[in-house]
Amino acid sequence: MNRLYHVPLSPFCRKVRLTLSEKRIEVELVEERFWEQSPEFLRRNPAGKVPVLRLDNKLLSESQAICEYLDETHPQPQLIPRDIEKRYEVRRLCAWFDDKFHHEVTSKLLYERVNKKITKAGYPDSRNVKSGSSRIKYHLDYLAWLLDQRRWLAGDMMTLADITAAAHLSCLDYISDVDWNRHAVIKDWYAKIKSRPSFRALLADQVPGFPPPPHYADLDF
Amino acid sequence: MNRLYHVPLSPFCRKVRLTLSEKRIEVELVEERFWEQSPEFLRRNPAGKVPVLRLDNKLLSESQAICEYLDETHPQPQLIPRDIEKRYEVRRLCAWFDDKFHHEVTSKLLYERVNKKITKAGYPDSRNVKSGSSRIKYHLDYLAWLLDQRRWLAGDMMTLADITAAAHLSCLDYISDVDWNRHAVIKDWYAKIKSRPSFRALLADQVPGFPPPPHYADLDF
Repeated sequence: MNRLYHVPLSPFCRKVRLTLSEKRIEVELVEERFWEQSPEFLRRNPAGKVPVLRLDNKLLSESQAICEYLDETHPQPQLIPRDIEKRYEVRRLCAWFDDKFHHEVTSKLLYERVNKKITKAGYPDSRNVKSGSSRIKYHLDYLAWLLDQRRWLAGDMMTLADITAAAHLSCLDYISDVDWNRHAVIKDWYAKIKSRPSFRALLADQVPGFPPPPHYADLDF
Repeated sequence: MNRLYHVPLSPFCRKVRLTLSEKRIEVELVEERFWEQSPEFLRRNPAGKVPVLRLDNKLLSESQAICEYLDETHPQPQLIPRDIEKRYEVRRLCAWFDDKFHHEVTSKLLYERVNKKITKAGYPDSRNVKSGSSRIKYHLDYLAWLLDQRRWLAGDMMTLADITAAAHLSCLDYISDVDWNRHAVIKDWYAKIKSRPSFRALLADQVPGFPPPPHYADLDF
């Protein structure tokens, strides 16, 4: 049986879950307390991180590498376009979210507010939370600027760039940290991707101690 | 004229420089004080990071996305193999170095010791330096474990994984932070990649205030 070792509120795990679901690859989800670094888990991934995907008895780690692999082994629907210039733009935007947005926003809000409590790593650092709350505005403005010119983030079709951005934003939306009223064009884009069947499992996620706000699972938010 | 905006001791810039040089794409190098975030630079890359590559009047950012693009537009020599399983392994290892190694080692040693002084961001935090010095051993052991089974990091041919690893290690070697005597197999691998013509420009780098140790440019180190 294919299996994904994950945690519900990890943008990197969500990126892989969305990609698997878009490609209709069925996996069993197994929650992994990766921060405890059990020897068994470290055997599966010496990097000690989630997601780890067991697919056809092969163990895969690193979310972007997994998604590129899945797009090559299961080309339908295509999430990284064929055209070289467009492929670049998709990868640039994936890196924007997985690196810059993650560093400036996701880690400052989600990890301070949720992960620290779950992993018993202390209390939220209010300077980080303040910095994340301020930086997310800049990122939303950039997103809106892209969406003013394009139907989807990287062009005319939905790609891994949209999945990556939505994976991060959906985690932040779970803790009510996204101001959907800042740009109508972002709300429209998120409503489109949130309505996809691949998103359903994410909207059903429940993290003990952190109930999601009512609008989180509402398609008409 | 093609142009790369960079700083000499950035592993991400070095990764792109090595890739360009392997593919014999000539570029003018322009040092960019990216941390000053000049409006002109932010126009070139809203992410405010180096490297930024101007190639045929197109502006490219994000080192992994740039290298994948260059490998698709200039397929010789091939740095990402055709085989899907091997492509995955190359990308996994690139992410290992650009994410995990960068976070645990490069940022803890190089950024504390060099970048903080250059960007006037304060003094090195000795806890970070200690943590980086300790973690690099674990990474070298992992590298040695891979090289015990393979000629190059991801298999039988030199790939972007080797370039990525060498980009990080060469920056750390510039400040004498790599123990080349820990594993003979790593020293042999690094000697091989260090002897390539593409490495020459990196070995000539000089950062004012930080003279490299004599062994840095020595092919017989």
